[in-house]
Amino acid sequence: MKNLMKLKELLLLNRSYRRFDQHHSISQHILLELIDLARFAPSARNMQPLRYVLVNDAVVSSQIFPCLAWAGYLKEWPGPVDGERPSAYIVVTRDTTLGDNIFCDDGLAIQTILLGAVEQGLGGCIIGAVNRRKVAELLSIDDRYEILYVLALGKPVETVVLEEMREGAIQYWRDENQHHHVPKRSLDELVLKSIGNK
Amino acid sequence: MKNLMKLKELLLLNRSYRRFDQHHSISQHILLELIDLARFAPSARNMQPLRYVLVNDAVVSSQIFPCLAWAGYLKEWPGPVDGERPSAYIVVTRDTTLGDNIFCDDGLAIQTILLGAVEQGLGGCIIGAVNRRKVAELLSIDDRYEILYVLALGKPVETVVLEEMREGAIQYWRDENQHHHVPKRSLDELVLKSIGNK
Repeated sequence: MKNLMKLKELLLLNRSYRRFDQHHSISQHILLELIDLARFAPSARNMQPLRYVLVNDAVVSSQIFPCLAWAGYLKEWPGPVDGERPSAYIVVTRDTTLGDNIFCDDGLAIQTILLGAVEQGLGGCIIGAVNRRKVAELLSIDDRYEILYVLALGKPVETVVLEEMREGAIQYWRDENQHHHVPKRSLDELVLKSIGNK
Repeated sequence: MKNLMKLKELLLLNRSYRRFDQHHSISQHILLELIDLARFAPSARNMQPLRYVLVNDAVVSSQIFPCLAWAGYLKEWPGPVDGERPSAYIVVTRDTTLGDNIFCDDGLAIQTILLGAVEQGLGGCIIGAVNRRKVAELLSIDDRYEILYVLALGKPVETVVLEEMREGAIQYWRDENQHHHVPKRSLDELVLKSIGNK
């Protein structure tokens, strides 16, 4: 990458993408770079308990795909078609020998990885609805490592539109052009109170 | 802000700072801007359950300060002296009426806020050891909102040195010049395996 961006630009481009150009491959080098960024995320008690499995093999990726559930609110949509599937995955695990509480380390690291992906012209989606037993088996992940999330990564081919949330309607939706609309709460709603001046 | 930075530069500057120039004030405008960035962090099921209390009042800040425990590993250090305390706080809460599981929304939002602070020439520290009952009372935070973390913010006056972790020694430490040293695990340690080519 290319042109430097302000954080806000990166954040606006960092949408949850679920359709990709599957033929755009992502090298292990890039995946390692993303983890190297996550290395510098804060960590509670400096424990750094997260461990990662990086996958860019097409066959293994095609085996991971059916272990994931996509876009809970889009009941009619079974997930991306062949050709629009992720070209890489990062499986985020925690080393269970390093304590039971990872505090918010997972989010701190994952946001770092996703922003790094966006900076590279890529994008991703955090998937929590994972058949963990099957993914662990497929990738021979030892029981010591608990699978937290699977990050799907690729070159996005999806238009995501942010819009104002109305009356608490949180569900994202797709229009007839398959543009993906995501309602966001207003700043006013997020700030309970401001104590101080100016 | 000023010069655009690559994400990696931002990340390297985004250390857990615990000593600040207390006379450098942070406006409510800046605090709001940080929350406006967090608005664009991913959110599980698009629920967006986090709510924030913004504090830059000096008197209220001085009342929050004793509710926080600083730097668990520095047993001799009671926290920053007067003059080096945070000039603002963001209290991160969740609206308990929006479900019990926030997944990793907290970390996703907090990393966003901290990177935004760094982009503004500021810095912060995520504090988990909080007297939550007292902070809630002090700021009149309704029971509906569970306090997750307090972010201490200010203009850092501390030198933080990253170093290679040796033999799993995770504890950060201070040298005779009060430089704060933080051991980081290697990239090799974080990557369990790479499946694929190149």
